[in-house]
Amino acid sequence: MSKRIPKRSKKAGLPPGTPMYIGENPTEETKITIIHYDATELQEKEVEKLEECFSLRDKQTVNWINVNGLHIEAIEQLGHCFGVPALVLEDILNTDQRPKMEDFGKNLYIVLKMLSCGPHNKDILIEQVSLVLGPNYVLSFQERGGDVFEPVRERIRSGKGHLRQAGPDYLAYALLDAIVDNYFIILESLSEKIAVVEDKLLTDPTPKTVQEIHHLKREMIYLRKSIWPLREVITGLEREEVMLITPITRTHLRDVYDHTIQVIETIETYREMLASMHDLYLSSMSNQMNEVMRVLTVIATIFIPLSFIAEVYDLNFFIPEVHWPWGYPAIILVMALIGMGMLIYFRKKRWL
Amino acid sequence: MSKRIPKRSKKAGLPPGTPMYIGENPTEETKITIIHYDATELQEKEVEKLEECFSLRDKQTVNWINVNGLHIEAIEQLGHCFGVPALVLEDILNTDQRPKMEDFGKNLYIVLKMLSCGPHNKDILIEQVSLVLGPNYVLSFQERGGDVFEPVRERIRSGKGHLRQAGPDYLAYALLDAIVDNYFIILESLSEKIAVVEDKLLTDPTPKTVQEIHHLKREMIYLRKSIWPLREVITGLEREEVMLITPITRTHLRDVYDHTIQVIETIETYREMLASMHDLYLSSMSNQMNEVMRVLTVIATIFIPLSFIAEVYDLNFFIPEVHWPWGYPAIILVMALIGMGMLIYFRKKRWL
Amino acid sequence: MSKRIPKRSKKAGLPPGTPMYIGENPTEETKITIIHYDATELQEKEVEKLEECFSLRDKQTVNWINVNGLHIEAIEQLGHCFGVPALVLEDILNTDQRPKMEDFGKNLYIVLKMLSCGPHNKDILIEQVSLVLGPNYVLSFQERGGDVFEPVRERIRSGKGHLRQAGPDYLAYALLDAIVDNYFIILESLSEKIAVVEDKLLTDPTPKTVQEIHHLKREMIYLRKSIWPLREVITGLEREEVMLITPITRTHLRDVYDHTIQVIETIETYREMLASMHDLYLSSMSNQMNEVMRVLTVIATIFIPLSFIAEVYDLNFFIPEVHWPWGYPAIILVMALIGMGMLIYFRKKRWL
Amino acid sequence: MSKRIPKRSKKAGLPPGTPMYIGENPTEETKITIIHYDATELQEKEVEKLEECFSLRDKQTVNWINVNGLHIEAIEQLGHCFGVPALVLEDILNTDQRPKMEDFGKNLYIVLKMLSCGPHNKDILIEQVSLVLGPNYVLSFQERGGDVFEPVRERIRSGKGHLRQAGPDYLAYALLDAIVDNYFIILESLSEKIAVVEDKLLTDPTPKTVQEIHHLKREMIYLRKSIWPLREVITGLEREEVMLITPITRTHLRDVYDHTIQVIETIETYREMLASMHDLYLSSMSNQMNEVMRVLTVIATIFIPLSFIAEVYDLNFFIPEVHWPWGYPAIILVMALIGMGMLIYFRKKRWL
Amino acid sequence: MSKRIPKRSKKAGLPPGTPMYIGENPTEETKITIIHYDATELQEKEVEKLEECFSLRDKQTVNWINVNGLHIEAIEQLGHCFGVPALVLEDILNTDQRPKMEDFGKNLYIVLKMLSCGPHNKDILIEQVSLVLGPNYVLSFQERGGDVFEPVRERIRSGKGHLRQAGPDYLAYALLDAIVDNYFIILESLSEKIAVVEDKLLTDPTPKTVQEIHHLKREMIYLRKSIWPLREVITGLEREEVMLITPITRTHLRDVYDHTIQVIETIETYREMLASMHDLYLSSMSNQMNEVMRVLTVIATIFIPLSFIAEVYDLNFFIPEVHWPWGYPAIILVMALIGMGMLIYFRKKRWL
Repeated sequence: MSKRIPKRSKKAGLPPGTPMYIGENPTEETKITIIHYDATELQEKEVEKLEECFSLRDKQTVNWINVNGLHIEAIEQLGHCFGVPALVLEDILNTDQRPKMEDFGKNLYIVLKMLSCGPHNKDILIEQVSLVLGPNYVLSFQERGGDVFEPVRERIRSGKGHLRQAGPDYLAYALLDAIVDNYFIILESLSEKIAVVEDKLLTDPTPKTVQEIHHLKREMIYLRKSIWPLREVITGLEREEVMLITPITRTHLRDVYDHTIQVIETIETYREMLASMHDLYLSSMSNQMNEVMRVLTVIATIFIPLSFIAEVYDLNFFIPEVHWPWGYPAIILVMALIGMGMLIYFRKKRWL
Repeated sequence: MSKRIPKRSKKAGLPPGTPMYIGENPTEETKITIIHYDATELQEKEVEKLEECFSLRDKQTVNWINVNGLHIEAIEQLGHCFGVPALVLEDILNTDQRPKMEDFGKNLYIVLKMLSCGPHNKDILIEQVSLVLGPNYVLSFQERGGDVFEPVRERIRSGKGHLRQAGPDYLAYALLDAIVDNYFIILESLSEKIAVVEDKLLTDPTPKTVQEIHHLKREMIYLRKSIWPLREVITGLEREEVMLITPITRTHLRDVYDHTIQVIETIETYREMLASMHDLYLSSMSNQMNEVMRVLTVIATIFIPLSFIAEVYDLNFFIPEVHWPWGYPAIILVMALIGMGMLIYFRKKRWL
Repeated sequence: MSKRIPKRSKKAGLPPGTPMYIGENPTEETKITIIHYDATELQEKEVEKLEECFSLRDKQTVNWINVNGLHIEAIEQLGHCFGVPALVLEDILNTDQRPKMEDFGKNLYIVLKMLSCGPHNKDILIEQVSLVLGPNYVLSFQERGGDVFEPVRERIRSGKGHLRQAGPDYLAYALLDAIVDNYFIILESLSEKIAVVEDKLLTDPTPKTVQEIHHLKREMIYLRKSIWPLREVITGLEREEVMLITPITRTHLRDVYDHTIQVIETIETYREMLASMHDLYLSSMSNQMNEVMRVLTVIATIFIPLSFIAEVYDLNFFIPEVHWPWGYPAIILVMALIGMGMLIYFRKKRWL
Repeated sequence: MSKRIPKRSKKAGLPPGTPMYIGENPTEETKITIIHYDATELQEKEVEKLEECFSLRDKQTVNWINVNGLHIEAIEQLGHCFGVPALVLEDILNTDQRPKMEDFGKNLYIVLKMLSCGPHNKDILIEQVSLVLGPNYVLSFQERGGDVFEPVRERIRSGKGHLRQAGPDYLAYALLDAIVDNYFIILESLSEKIAVVEDKLLTDPTPKTVQEIHHLKREMIYLRKSIWPLREVITGLEREEVMLITPITRTHLRDVYDHTIQVIETIETYREMLASMHDLYLSSMSNQMNEVMRVLTVIATIFIPLSFIAEVYDLNFFIPEVHWPWGYPAIILVMALIGMGMLIYFRKKRWL
Repeated sequence: MSKRIPKRSKKAGLPPGTPMYIGENPTEETKITIIHYDATELQEKEVEKLEECFSLRDKQTVNWINVNGLHIEAIEQLGHCFGVPALVLEDILNTDQRPKMEDFGKNLYIVLKMLSCGPHNKDILIEQVSLVLGPNYVLSFQERGGDVFEPVRERIRSGKGHLRQAGPDYLAYALLDAIVDNYFIILESLSEKIAVVEDKLLTDPTPKTVQEIHHLKREMIYLRKSIWPLREVITGLEREEVMLITPITRTHLRDVYDHTIQVIETIETYREMLASMHDLYLSSMSNQMNEVMRVLTVIATIFIPLSFIAEVYDLNFFIPEVHWPWGYPAIILVMALIGMGMLIYFRKKRWL
């Protein structure tokens, strides 16, 4: 679990506005790609020297700079060039942010969480994505490189849809939309896992099953914590005072909002499903126990008294003058009768 | 469970406004029926070529086009003819929508869930229904053909009630009302299932019972998810800004709203009932276990010491010089006394 | 449980405003009584022909018509005479209404639930009561005849208090107040049942006890569902726009509101009590089981090893050359020591 | 429990404004004390004839009349003299009131609950206190005499603090404050009880412990019900429209409000603590059961097979021609090996 | 637990505004340090006589007086010098305050909770911190001396960041920020403890584990109670009417607000984690029990019938005329077959 909680304590006591990376993989290489386009032209390249980005500030195209991997110097230089406030630079690096949106008039800062399936499809990885939207640019910062934004790039390249005609606010919306769409993929994979566990639960519950339920519950708790605040973020973006968002993008944001609500409700639904599954597991444990105990009780209740009779009869044999010739068959008959009586009694009680 | 979750992932990354069906039965034949009527005349027919619908756009009667089965081309053509926005066409096909209502001024889009009992009356099937209300038409889209709208058709044909005098908004209300009325039928069938399971629980609980409780709980979770947002939808329709709804229809919508609240409260009531039933099941498991254990304990506690006595007395016999003539009856008497003492003790403890 | 859910499905598909009784006892005889009074005079009689009521419409006294038993024709005729809207007539007969209040300007419709103890004081019966308040009349409709309104009649007859001086709105308030006062009687009887069950739980819990807890829980779920919406009803009546309610009645309604809140909070309190009692039951089951298991374990753990020793010693006897004279007393001593050691061990573990 | 629920049913059906005592100790003697004071003078006496109070109505000092024990006539006479509305007199006697505050312009009615520890410090007693605040007087009504107001009397006598300078509204505040301060004492005694039970739970849980947890839970449920509405009462008093409260008293009421919130939050905290303690109890029951079962299983699993071997070997002895001389030591060795193997197996499974 | 609840009862009945320390360590030495600084100069010293502080009142620098350890006289003198209201002085000493903020126009009172790890890193200690913000000073009061404010002092000394340029409101913000940053450190240590307990739970749950879960749950309950109200405190500080807070500080307070929300959400997340872990524990107990019972049942069910057969065969030997030569091998074979049959049966039932 500890890996989910970036060490914010490293930062405690520093003055506000001190950028410092608190995540786990600061050594990963920073990779920067830029795309600038308008309705007619499109340029895309991978940046080798950070200074290549600076010229984009004054270009009248839509300029998208995507940064994979968080390095303090790169982010500080980029931030200063595009006039990003120091507190925002700090937040970009502080990967333990709650999703939020801040409007600084001349640019807009959005931070949210991106989900991806970890290796072996086991854990859900939660990664912070920061977007800075300006009048002619979008800066996007990812902790690790992922291919969630690839479909957006494809749409830019193909020139289909509204994207190439619209401004950077529409690009920011498209990126948000790509991240939220990605949530559905994660939810589907979780839904399949839940279905598998539920099947197992109904047919053959093992202690492993309940650990998987617990694991899924935990994933849900963290998912909810990551996605819940997104609701307010998008409501914030839809407000009319936000100058950088055009009305047409605003109507599309409504759509992202609906999707977010749906993701949240689906998570709640899964949480309730898992709670109900845990209840079912406890019941099936109880049932198994009951069944085990019944077997033991039936066996013991039949044979312990019979053994006792055999032993008492055994004593009898030592008294030499009392030797009935039909004693043995008689005692066997008595035992058989008692045993059958017991069996009938248990069947009537529905233990068999 | 997986069948309940349409594969929205197929769509991830596509530009918004790309219609694509994500449900399960796209191969089913699309069946289109049209009814156009006013206070005096009525025409009803099944459409063979889609183009037959287009002429209805300019007819001053109330025109209802019902589409069973979602095919991309049919829906796109119909949509373009009646001026339905691309985002709405996308939502009609995307059958994983949350119930919602969107007002575009010249038409109004409502999406909600229709419930029906599956084969063998086992599962509740949840199906998406989309309504598009225009100035002189209602388009309704169903995933599968159902007979929920049949009573509305009957009322149109018979000409009784307010329906034939009123406009398309009243027709849309009548369709909504038919769907919500149908919820009550589903709830009644669930109520009966709950009553059956509760009876079983009180008289003869088996592991099967708890699986049925779990199954019903799950149904409730999905029902609630499907119906809960309908509340906002109808509140939205009742607002005065919605131009396409006339005041008289608005008062009737109040009625649908009341029914929706009642459905939601009934679902909550059933959920609490089921939770209480699960508690009762766990208790009855506990009770059964207690009873089983008591039987075992009583039998074992009576006979294990008696057997021990018999064995010890047995040893005694091997010592030849110690042969009391009354040994055997004496030991039998001692055993009987101990056995009866035990029985009295257990009766006092109320284990018997 | 099924008896609590009137078959609303009978109505599905009918046009709105079609009155139809969905309850259970439509064959019961309708009994109509009328009382009309003002400060000086009072007339009270049982009606034999429905037409007798119609003359009351234009009388300037306060006219109260009480209808016990819901018959479609009687209610329709009465409704048309006093100008009650068709949707209200439908709601009066549809006994599965959620408590609500509707203001039609010239009259006011209130529907709420009346509680009574069933036969043998076992179940709480929930019955629908409808009130229609007009400028000079109150119509009250009950499913079954009950004596909840008797004290109000007494107050009218005696002429004490404000009732005879006031208008029909005050009479409606008095009826509401009588129903809510009656809730307290039901709650007291439930409180006594809970106290009885709790006593049983603390002294001698049986499987029957938990079924009673479940039964009471269920009653609470239905009570809450019936009473909770009354809150909004009374808040609605207190609003200043409601023209038929005079200010003096409005201050008295405040009192009914307080009582309703108190009933709701008491129900919540009882629900929590019952939840805590169920927890206690589970714990006491656990305790009993522990006790049972300890007895079994103590007995088995003492005698199984001793029996084994006896058997091994038994074997020994067959070896003729090994016959110690003190073998028997020695083995008895060893056994006694082991038995006592076990007892001390269990006492130390506090199992005895 | 029944003693907590005053029999409100006695009142059902009576016209509103009929005073009637519904509590339990109506036979207790009514004791009336009066204190009237201003900044310079102070008089305090116990009243023998009720008429002595009436002269206070026109005195320009602050007049506090405290009534212990609720008698209908005394309260009615006092009420009429000071112009208290009939509905308030009814509420003073009806000791099952929800805490509330009503403003009648020329006087103000506050009803709330006073807590005290019952005999043997076992139960929390809940008693109703009514305050009527007028322009120059405070009337306080207690069910039983208690010493909660004694510190306020002391402060009046000593003349320290703001109390003697201020008006009757400040006196009413001081009484409220005394009652709320008293809640903290009750909470502390509960906190100590919880700590004692928790200690027992961690060291030596018995069935008695869980009954104590249940008892404390129940106390919390009733405490919360009694104190929760006080929040609204004080918010009501703080409103600017309340003419009888001076601004300086209003700032002090803020303080009482803070304390009330704190009491409520502490009760919630205790409730969660108790829920967690109940969970812990169930776990420790489970653990004990596991331990008991392990002992039984270890013993039975070791000795039952060994006994079987002994018996089989025993059979062997009856076959005369098969007599190995080393049979006995060999069989003992085999048994010892099997026993030790079992022990090692159980230790590996960590059952020992 | 009792140590967490300061004895507020000591104060019950005293007039409001009577300062009295209710915490636990009033004997600890009071230590006062003062720092006064502006953009250019800085003085820092430990105060020996209280009077040294009084001269700071009229200094135009930012004056920070930090008091460790609460002594009535020192606080009263300091309070009177800086014009702190008597009710605030009372609250500073009353260490059982709910976090709150009060604005008196010329100064501002903030009370909140500081967390620290107790000895051996076991319990979380909750300590009250009071801040009084005036036009040119900040007074801070701690119960015990801690080093939470040390980083702020470092930043003042170093002169880096905005702190030296800004006024006392920014200093108050910096202190708040330091306390909230400290919460993250506490949460991280709790997160590690939870991770450790969860690991234990998944690999080797013991009764100790569940006690640790209970302990952590309790910590969470108290943490939440301490931190939850901080939300309102900061919202209160951000309001525009608060004159002592400058706009630039207000934007920084937004950041503290975000962190507080994140702390609260993290606590909720941990609470849910712990609840899920407790469920998992109960399940694993159930599983262990099941496993133990299966072993017992398998052993008993195999050997009890076999012993019975041996005994019955034993009886047979006493009948001299019935002596089959192959009896012994035959009976051994029968037993082996029965034993193997049982084993196969149990394997099929998946108990082995």
